[in-house]
Amino acid sequence: MTQNIYDDPTFFAAYSRLPRSVRGLEGAPEWPSLRALLPALSVKRVLDLGCGFGWFCRWAHAQGAVRVVGVDVSQRMLERARAESSTAAIEYVQADLQLYDYPEAQFDVVYSSLALHYLENLAATLQGVQRALSPGGRFVFSVEHPLFTAPAQPGFIDHPAAGDRSHRTWPVDGYLDEGPRTTHWLAPGVIKQHRTLASYLRLLRAAGLTLEQLEEWGPSAQHIEQHPEWRDELQRPAFLLVACRRA
Amino acid sequence: MTQNIYDDPTFFAAYSRLPRSVRGLEGAPEWPSLRALLPALSVKRVLDLGCGFGWFCRWAHAQGAVRVVGVDVSQRMLERARAESSTAAIEYVQADLQLYDYPEAQFDVVYSSLALHYLENLAATLQGVQRALSPGGRFVFSVEHPLFTAPAQPGFIDHPAAGDRSHRTWPVDGYLDEGPRTTHWLAPGVIKQHRTLASYLRLLRAAGLTLEQLEEWGPSAQHIEQHPEWRDELQRPAFLLVACRRA
Repeated sequence: MTQNIYDDPTFFAAYSRLPRSVRGLEGAPEWPSLRALLPALSVKRVLDLGCGFGWFCRWAHAQGAVRVVGVDVSQRMLERARAESSTAAIEYVQADLQLYDYPEAQFDVVYSSLALHYLENLAATLQGVQRALSPGGRFVFSVEHPLFTAPAQPGFIDHPAAGDRSHRTWPVDGYLDEGPRTTHWLAPGVIKQHRTLASYLRLLRAAGLTLEQLEEWGPSAQHIEQHPEWRDELQRPAFLLVACRRA
Repeated sequence: MTQNIYDDPTFFAAYSRLPRSVRGLEGAPEWPSLRALLPALSVKRVLDLGCGFGWFCRWAHAQGAVRVVGVDVSQRMLERARAESSTAAIEYVQADLQLYDYPEAQFDVVYSSLALHYLENLAATLQGVQRALSPGGRFVFSVEHPLFTAPAQPGFIDHPAAGDRSHRTWPVDGYLDEGPRTTHWLAPGVIKQHRTLASYLRLLRAAGLTLEQLEEWGPSAQHIEQHPEWRDELQRPAFLLVACRRA
């Protein structure tokens, strides 16, 4: 069973203060790029894996989705999601994404934002996604980029050999050594699963999901103008955004 | 026009001493993985882009390929390739891979080893590959991995913050900043083109080439046993290996 760090009180309190928790989708800089990978949701049945506070579920409902199911392992997050939702068209389910009983061909779109890199058994979840999608259905997700999850000690460093001192360097090690990484992110002892980009593609293919688009996300020039402190983020992508189709 | 560094006497002399130049395909540690992506070549028509000394062309001929064309920009390399070939079934053509007049639907397999990361206009070459392939034909290639081409100063460093002192760290910067990189590899001033992995996939898709397999190559445990000095190579992939199919 995957660690449920989101129900850790320290982590939950810190996570609740992030811009993406306070401001929702608009507080996530990668959201416009992820949204661009989605088909129109009007009259669609939508499944959100790792729905958290339910921001995407409510947005999908507002876009005209006829049925929205949000799944998350965190009781605390689902409590708030349920409290902020006032429609029977959105259903929230508490489950580990690896153990959730994916219903067959019940959804036109499956979505997941920054959840899958916590899963030990991604193959099981992707098989569930394939089963849950109707033929031709779309799967759009983001994860932390493998360059982000690889290092034992993620964090920018000053690289004395670099000629250009205007930026710093992202030290990569262990990229080909897949498996758990224990990091301090909002709380100590957060366990993420590092996979190579090749492994993500192989697992999708093995599950019967055909790659349509892949983006390695970094901030735009406009982002940098608004947030000069994000400049280092141009040195390596923070997020991997992927769109697939059920064959 | 792309730099033709292989005809530079200093570079050519150093390149000629590499294991892959002296021993051929067996001197390239990634060759078994690249070979595994290839279909059987018996009775196939094969095009090799960046054929160099012709090792692959001769191997393809030995595998039963009925026609083999090797293209390279380097006069010096083609001279040696022609001198070492004794069959009319292998034809060598001197051309820039971006300007070569790709004949329509004349090949069942297009192959390229460590050549495409020199090209400024990869889109033109991929359109040529698509044109040259018969429907259903395969395109198998390797390039230096984007993690390898990205840094301004490629090379392992000691990372003082790393807990595990048994390995070193690959400093990544400029990953999202695509374009030329001038490095010292065998000779000063070698110009390679850095592209993100997402860009490789996007360019293939745009050219009508469907991704089938993708591998981020690093040495195996057996390689490390034979070459303990390759241990650092496990920290990041050196090569990107790709197999596609013409739709």
